[in-house]
Amino acid sequence: MKHFTACFLILFISVFIQAQKLESPDKNLTLSFLLNEKGEAYYRLKYKNKDVVKSSKLGFLISSPTSFAESFKITNTQFSSSDTSWNPVLGEQKTIRDNHNEMLISLQQAKTGYQLNIRFRLFNDGLGFRYEFPIQKDLRHFRIDEELSEFNLAQNCKAFWIPADYDTNEFRITTSRISEISSLIETARDEPLAAKAPSKNLAVQTPLMLKADNGLYINIHEAALVDYPAMHLNVDDKNYKLSTHLTPNKNGEKAYIQTQMNTPWRTIVVSDDARDILASKLILNLNDPSKIEDTSWIKPTKYIGVWWEYFTGGGSTWAYSDNQDIIIGETDYTRLKPNQHHGANTQHVKEYIDFAAENGFDAILVEGWNEGWEDNWAYGKEKIYSFTKAYPDFNVEELQAYAKAKGIKIIMHHETTSSAADYERQLDDAFSFMNKYGYTAVKTGYVGPIIPRSEYHDGQWMVNHYNFVAQKAAQYKIMVNSHEAVRPTGRSRTYPNWIAQESARGTEFESFNGNNPDHTTILPFTRLMGGPMDYTPGIFQGDLSVYGKNKARLSTTLVKQLALYVTLYSPLQMAADLPENYKKHMDAFQFIKDVAADWDNTYILEAEPGDYITIARKAKNKNEWFVGGITDENERTATINLSFLPKGRNFEAIIYEDGKNADWKTSTIDYKINKQKVSSATILKKRLAPSGGIGISIKEIK
Amino acid sequence: MKHFTACFLILFISVFIQAQKLESPDKNLTLSFLLNEKGEAYYRLKYKNKDVVKSSKLGFLISSPTSFAESFKITNTQFSSSDTSWNPVLGEQKTIRDNHNEMLISLQQAKTGYQLNIRFRLFNDGLGFRYEFPIQKDLRHFRIDEELSEFNLAQNCKAFWIPADYDTNEFRITTSRISEISSLIETARDEPLAAKAPSKNLAVQTPLMLKADNGLYINIHEAALVDYPAMHLNVDDKNYKLSTHLTPNKNGEKAYIQTQMNTPWRTIVVSDDARDILASKLILNLNDPSKIEDTSWIKPTKYIGVWWEYFTGGGSTWAYSDNQDIIIGETDYTRLKPNQHHGANTQHVKEYIDFAAENGFDAILVEGWNEGWEDNWAYGKEKIYSFTKAYPDFNVEELQAYAKAKGIKIIMHHETTSSAADYERQLDDAFSFMNKYGYTAVKTGYVGPIIPRSEYHDGQWMVNHYNFVAQKAAQYKIMVNSHEAVRPTGRSRTYPNWIAQESARGTEFESFNGNNPDHTTILPFTRLMGGPMDYTPGIFQGDLSVYGKNKARLSTTLVKQLALYVTLYSPLQMAADLPENYKKHMDAFQFIKDVAADWDNTYILEAEPGDYITIARKAKNKNEWFVGGITDENERTATINLSFLPKGRNFEAIIYEDGKNADWKTSTIDYKINKQKVSSATILKKRLAPSGGIGISIKEIK
Repeated sequence: MKHFTACFLILFISVFIQAQKLESPDKNLTLSFLLNEKGEAYYRLKYKNKDVVKSSKLGFLISSPTSFAESFKITNTQFSSSDTSWNPVLGEQKTIRDNHNEMLISLQQAKTGYQLNIRFRLFNDGLGFRYEFPIQKDLRHFRIDEELSEFNLAQNCKAFWIPADYDTNEFRITTSRISEISSLIETARDEPLAAKAPSKNLAVQTPLMLKADNGLYINIHEAALVDYPAMHLNVDDKNYKLSTHLTPNKNGEKAYIQTQMNTPWRTIVVSDDARDILASKLILNLNDPSKIEDTSWIKPTKYIGVWWEYFTGGGSTWAYSDNQDIIIGETDYTRLKPNQHHGANTQHVKEYIDFAAENGFDAILVEGWNEGWEDNWAYGKEKIYSFTKAYPDFNVEELQAYAKAKGIKIIMHHETTSSAADYERQLDDAFSFMNKYGYTAVKTGYVGPIIPRSEYHDGQWMVNHYNFVAQKAAQYKIMVNSHEAVRPTGRSRTYPNWIAQESARGTEFESFNGNNPDHTTILPFTRLMGGPMDYTPGIFQGDLSVYGKNKARLSTTLVKQLALYVTLYSPLQMAADLPENYKKHMDAFQFIKDVAADWDNTYILEAEPGDYITIARKAKNKNEWFVGGITDENERTATINLSFLPKGRNFEAIIYEDGKNADWKTSTIDYKINKQKVSSATILKKRLAPSGGIGISIKEIK
Repeated sequence: MKHFTACFLILFISVFIQAQKLESPDKNLTLSFLLNEKGEAYYRLKYKNKDVVKSSKLGFLISSPTSFAESFKITNTQFSSSDTSWNPVLGEQKTIRDNHNEMLISLQQAKTGYQLNIRFRLFNDGLGFRYEFPIQKDLRHFRIDEELSEFNLAQNCKAFWIPADYDTNEFRITTSRISEISSLIETARDEPLAAKAPSKNLAVQTPLMLKADNGLYINIHEAALVDYPAMHLNVDDKNYKLSTHLTPNKNGEKAYIQTQMNTPWRTIVVSDDARDILASKLILNLNDPSKIEDTSWIKPTKYIGVWWEYFTGGGSTWAYSDNQDIIIGETDYTRLKPNQHHGANTQHVKEYIDFAAENGFDAILVEGWNEGWEDNWAYGKEKIYSFTKAYPDFNVEELQAYAKAKGIKIIMHHETTSSAADYERQLDDAFSFMNKYGYTAVKTGYVGPIIPRSEYHDGQWMVNHYNFVAQKAAQYKIMVNSHEAVRPTGRSRTYPNWIAQESARGTEFESFNGNNPDHTTILPFTRLMGGPMDYTPGIFQGDLSVYGKNKARLSTTLVKQLALYVTLYSPLQMAADLPENYKKHMDAFQFIKDVAADWDNTYILEAEPGDYITIARKAKNKNEWFVGGITDENERTATINLSFLPKGRNFEAIIYEDGKNADWKTSTIDYKINKQKVSSATILKKRLAPSGGIGISIKEIK
């Protein structure tokens, strides 16, 4: 039963017979497009004359067994330049500049006559390229069996990676050399997650952050993921070659294409200064402008929620009863025996509303308000929840009236347990229900494997689903915060109502098996490259054993939790802990109450992936600044240069610092707060505890 | 590379250690339930002491590798009887009697403790049984890998069968012995159909009609198919054993079950008189009563349509333009160049409305009214059609006003090209659109392979889809006529707005590669056992070469086309031919104008599957009777006993007969019409041409 396979490794140097070049506006980046004697297409990217990616293939395998990757000839090349700016509805800065040079290569394949265009855009901070399938005579609908785009690294870079998985991105992030990935990937995959579909081969997810020994920081991701599967990256750990691994459906089909469609942009952000990676707006720039004309209803939102109490081990449940023989639409909930520990009951929700109103929050999220939580068996049944029927002890009208009187919005919750098919069926009814009762935002959730059962979270079908939900929500003037969805690719520019996503390992994991202390020093370089994250920080009580049997402990100090409101950008920010914990530390809580969620400007002061990040931001339309600094498991001294403040004026800074004994392992709640006069000339040197942080709020003294 | 497989054929006689018996009300049928020493469950059915099915297994394979088919013990047995009657909203008779004896067997599996109930209902015309999964402690959600129900025939019966296929039921019907199926199945499968997914093994579809040499007629099907895949039948052609073959999804998963669900009923209709099979209401009786309270809007409908002209080869098209680079929601149709042969244009539709109004029809169907037909590439893209945007030359408001003024309804058309996922997304909008413009009925279509791509037409997901559409339509007071859907199982009792389906080889095939002359003598014994069929008869011009290059010829005489309005029951009846053809034969057309579509009573006068059928029916609430008789490729003399007419009264019959030279091969339009006085004592002997027919309308002479 043994098979002999003859392996020949052919090493050859391609002879490139056609080439085109493009430079970035600042001329630091050079992109070459090359065609070899077989008509195979390649590109190469250099930054300040250093290789970012070496010659890397372009093309496709389409409707098996056609290679759409050879016998190309260039039929046309067009160059153009653009320097514009635009204002995001919500964002890290008021105005974003889009300055790039473009090259559009038109190819034709000799053997088939098929046409393929490749559009390259070179910015000062990196490259975006995408494939365009023009309308043509002999090709209209086809299936992509694989996209062949490569990213051939010049070196054995240090990588900040999570393993490729078609269903989840909630892994811890591993830091290693490319060459070490294969020895570490099984450990990385060994996480108890609700749905997992690991790639069979050695592959990792994007956004992938890389650091080369020559000092280059390289980030690979994609922009404007629409009607196409998410890209993972195959890893050739011997030659440091990365290549595209599109998420398939369960039939192995990858993408269905109709000519006139484009792929998403493949993005490479690059610099020799890590801060430039965080400052990059390349991915947003590659997305289409907002398709929503009136955006007045899209608002930055700070919220608390009936949420963390479900994770603490304190006994509160999403479910209203313990009866699990539920059939949605048939079970009469008023006849069920309540379990007496249902979190989302009217009285309890009012307490949250009171606390939100007293402390200046915009909204509260209520999970567990709707029928179905008793029997939310993923993949076992399609109709899991009703999105229009509240539990008997959750009075929709009463609570809406109560919240409205106190100026608080209630955020709707649509956990689908990944029965996306049934969610689509209910979507119009669900959004109409929200409109009727005055809900203006929804948190969606996709825990567990997907129904329809051919699909994965990251495949073309689900990508269309998430986009469809955002689009449909926009019609109803509803903001969307999606959890467990495919990681973002800047679509929040086009649908600014899609204000945040989770799509990475968030705070909830602090209540199970924990996050690494360096987790949030990497996320801005990986997950957040695609868009805002609803990380839900703000946990003050880091020792969960106070609630009962849960032995979990937070991986940061309290002050680092404060700093995350600045370092992890999101226009939607939760104060995730229980009100009772905030009430014990109202002085520290003041930072969360004060901090903005929408910004005029952002200043990346210090950054090294996996080690530390210090960021300052100016609140939108206000003379208020906030600084957040965090470190990994090592203590450090942050150098905070306040030169971003207007010159010649005086300011008061409130500084929230780790206490002397603060340490994520032993003492998370140790903090100190003091006030200090500062100016644009001030340079603060501040010690951060192991997995500690610093938070500063600054106002002008008049 | 060879594998040795040791095959042992173990023949053993099961020793049954527990048994329960049930008799039909008339005691002709006896059902035995048996448990052998391994705790395996069996049933056996006898009719007048002849075996209908010999000992046949019951049970399941559940969430692999658990056998839920052994180590059973009986924990309880309950007997009950019922004799009631009910009135269908639309039907073959005003009142339907439901007289049965019932036995509910409660089983428990020793090794697992799992409980399983089997409910048997024995009627005078056959057996229904289903599995019920009661709520229990240790079993809640599970997956069925196969249902093991067997139907072990006593003999090598003659079978009227189509090959098992998860995606289509549009095959010709083959007539053969069970033992001959394997040699004929490849030929039977060799049909060019838009979507095909043949079973890998020897299997056929239900309803399966069988005739045994001992004179028994046996029909195997199912009733009340809800949230479960359609049943096919594996064929053991050596031992004449049939066994359940549930339609899988593409992952091989068959059914997802939550305890408290039931399977559909497995039905065996049996008699020694073929007419009893056609008269049976067993399948309807096993469905739930109507869930629609106000059914006043559900109406029998006779209609014509902008439809057949798309099949004739005359050049009319569904598509408005020849541009195939359509993207729904983006393409601006007003900018496209019209192809000038779009059928559903306002002026042309008005001509149909005029003709419908002049001839007393209720409605016209218009296909090709909506955006998307240019590029309706099945499986290649999800968004194929808009169901709310009409083509530029189809004026919705103008046509609705025009039709309304003439008392005509326009039937909506929703071809999905099997992108069921996208149809569900649009469904609320589509039905709201219909409500807004006064459409009260929709023809749905499912040509091509299914999206979501895990699914087949007959799997659990799509079964749920069809039921969902019918249910949702009921909310909007819309009647549904579904084409290419899973074959019906009596659900029209529960959702009487689901007034008809195609789900078999219909008239449209007369325009491609034809139907067999015996086709419609079998359909009532197979496809129609589950519910009304929108067969779309009434083709007068049987020679399609008159239109152009199409060389197809009708497989029946003109008079047989008339007879089908009586022999193929449906409350929705189309006169499918072009108005111009009816105008040439207004005398024959009179039968179609007169014939009812809803009935007080039905009399099966003569019937032999594959050979002939003669049926008489009394129109609902009218003293009018209609008789239809058809034959296969052989001419025959029908004996039409009018004893169903009220005694002692006089009637006039208009008799539509095949002409002397009528023959489906040479002369289809040869017919004669004459009037005759008749009474309940009249017995007519009438010659039917090869693939000919007879139609009679009868009114009282006052």
